[in-house]
Amino acid sequence: MLVLRSSGASPFGRKVKVAAALLGLIDKIEIRTTDTLDPTDSIRKENPLGKIPALHLDDGTILYDSRVIVEYLDMLAGGGKIIPSQGAERWHALRLQALADGLMDAAILQIYEIRFREETKREPKWVEHQAGKVGRALAELERNPPSYGAIPDIGSITVACALAYLDFRFEGRWRKDHPKLVAWLADFEKRVPAFAVSAPK
Amino acid sequence: MLVLRSSGASPFGRKVKVAAALLGLIDKIEIRTTDTLDPTDSIRKENPLGKIPALHLDDGTILYDSRVIVEYLDMLAGGGKIIPSQGAERWHALRLQALADGLMDAAILQIYEIRFREETKREPKWVEHQAGKVGRALAELERNPPSYGAIPDIGSITVACALAYLDFRFEGRWRKDHPKLVAWLADFEKRVPAFAVSAPK
Repeated sequence: MLVLRSSGASPFGRKVKVAAALLGLIDKIEIRTTDTLDPTDSIRKENPLGKIPALHLDDGTILYDSRVIVEYLDMLAGGGKIIPSQGAERWHALRLQALADGLMDAAILQIYEIRFREETKREPKWVEHQAGKVGRALAELERNPPSYGAIPDIGSITVACALAYLDFRFEGRWRKDHPKLVAWLADFEKRVPAFAVSAPK
Repeated sequence: MLVLRSSGASPFGRKVKVAAALLGLIDKIEIRTTDTLDPTDSIRKENPLGKIPALHLDDGTILYDSRVIVEYLDMLAGGGKIIPSQGAERWHALRLQALADGLMDAAILQIYEIRFREETKREPKWVEHQAGKVGRALAELERNPPSYGAIPDIGSITVACALAYLDFRFEGRWRKDHPKLVAWLADFEKRVPAFAVSAPK
């Protein structure tokens, strides 16, 4: 049995859960909830960075981060299932994953600005810097919403998790100016039932 | 000709430069200096996240982030050169890269705390949170400095870039408590001449 350290709210954890479900591996994974801000949580021993997701393998190895875990799961499922093995498709999917990962990182930093600081210590310049990353990433995705086949690739999976995270933490304000992406996410939700299973809470 | 957007100080950019040199590709790459904090720098159009490194391919595609670029370069060089293709070696190298990438991210966030904020807006709890990640990552590496063969893998390359970044930005304070890692880095510098070429400035 694999053990996944994650949390209900983590978009990076959701990426792994959706990937595992699409790869037919979700029943082989026990999910253990993690509080990365609790210094006594064992996650800091399992992953020195104190970050989730982290995946315990049968031989005691602990894999992180989400990109490495997703690649490992894809290999377990035979390879080339949600991460194309080669060619332009591969680079397109990996670049898209990097874009959506970066969008999530920039969104999380805005949340941490509130969680770690009293109001007097918040810095609008920093928040704007991060919001700029989110805004430009959304604009690029709106210009060209990603296409995918019968099984979505890791790029599209990560984009869906990123948009849902903005819904969860930023009251879906992105929706107003990104009609094509709104339609894209609605379609993704319909075509990928595994996505709903892992909705943040 | 490939074009790499980077900066002299970026440890993620250095990772790509060292990888390119080891793969025999550095002469095929033109490096264009980038200022990620300058809103007029074209990097924000090339990579919506406004981050370096980003690599322009001949067909107009722009790849990011450093992990995707390094994998692409490894493929160009035939595959499996600095990123093992399969087996335990692969997961070990990718996990180590993730650890060292996370160390660099946490170090950079401490630098940004100073660069983006006046003193009254700095938050010791946040800086300690990031320093904790760096400290635990260093402790894990000190317990078990990575081994590598004739050509270092992407895990070891990234660890070397991370340690050198701590030298560059944090006056090498990590050295005092990590004698095995100090020896490891000295040995890496000797065995991997390409590493010196890309020293931060």
